[in-house]
Amino acid sequence: MAAADIERLIRLLGRLPGLGPRSARKAGLAMLKRPDALLRPLLDALATCLERVRVCEVCGNLDTVDPCSVCRDPERDPQLLCVVQEVEDLWAMERLVGFRGHYHVLGGTLSAIEGRSPETIRIAGLLERVAGGRVSEVVLALGATVDGQTTAHYLHERLRPFACRVTRLGHGLPVGGELNYLDEGTLEAAMRARQQVA
Amino acid sequence: MAAADIERLIRLLGRLPGLGPRSARKAGLAMLKRPDALLRPLLDALATCLERVRVCEVCGNLDTVDPCSVCRDPERDPQLLCVVQEVEDLWAMERLVGFRGHYHVLGGTLSAIEGRSPETIRIAGLLERVAGGRVSEVVLALGATVDGQTTAHYLHERLRPFACRVTRLGHGLPVGGELNYLDEGTLEAAMRARQQVA
Repeated sequence: MAAADIERLIRLLGRLPGLGPRSARKAGLAMLKRPDALLRPLLDALATCLERVRVCEVCGNLDTVDPCSVCRDPERDPQLLCVVQEVEDLWAMERLVGFRGHYHVLGGTLSAIEGRSPETIRIAGLLERVAGGRVSEVVLALGATVDGQTTAHYLHERLRPFACRVTRLGHGLPVGGELNYLDEGTLEAAMRARQQVA
Repeated sequence: MAAADIERLIRLLGRLPGLGPRSARKAGLAMLKRPDALLRPLLDALATCLERVRVCEVCGNLDTVDPCSVCRDPERDPQLLCVVQEVEDLWAMERLVGFRGHYHVLGGTLSAIEGRSPETIRIAGLLERVAGGRVSEVVLALGATVDGQTTAHYLHERLRPFACRVTRLGHGLPVGGELNYLDEGTLEAAMRARQQVA
């Protein structure tokens, strides 16, 4: 019913994660109704990002400079390297943890079922960085999913030849979490990781 | 943490209805990771819409032509005028009902609480169209909300002087709906609107 141009806009919005056909229509119409407040600024921001944002050649982060501002930061500890799956995980580490080392963004996980082999993610670059010899600890901050843990095991094997510690995030009771909502695996992990009360 | 340009994109996406800060970040990152598949087509669609889409001066619909393609359609019954709140309601009527008359999009409702008076929505234009004398029935297809019904009552009063029928959508049991999930108001309305079984 709507003009072809509007339909196309709504279809493209609907391809974004988190937007179904219904919310894409709502978002598209909101922009068209308020072009100066919504559409024009977004158009400008997208054009700017398309022009300026690039993938960091060192770590895989997204930034307007390459190497990215994290890789360039001289205050960070070059001995500490945190491996994450996606750019959003890097941002979460920065926002929530204030990690002060460097990162390596794999850009995904290995997956036997979906056929994602080591060449499909940034593993070669990681090994190269570690082979450089400055890294003393690699933190595997990967998801506690089957694919995340498969990837962690694989990376652990590949990192064995190098003289660096390999660690992973601790499992356990989420802060603020209640015991009776925990799944069995997490509760077992929390039990194994129990600590002396100070 | 992210570059200012990326942060701005995410902030602007978060202003769209249906996108919270979390889903805006996800959508923004998805675009940046796949610029050719997602960002560039969306940028192009937005630019095209900004350039071409306008509000129909007759009915308030959004289209790339003005008057819009609904207003221009010679197959439609000029005696039948359906009043809706928003453009999405017009589209719903077209998609779901295949209504074959004309429309008038108010662009909102009256609201005593939020202080929206008759001048803030397209009522003057509606009265002008009805005063033109070709309309024999005005269907008030407004929401069954307090504001929607306030608006319907107000329009009914303003349309009294004209020689046209004023109707509203029927209330009742939604098709596929179960009785025990209905609210009291809807069940009462359905009871009042009961019909002879043929």
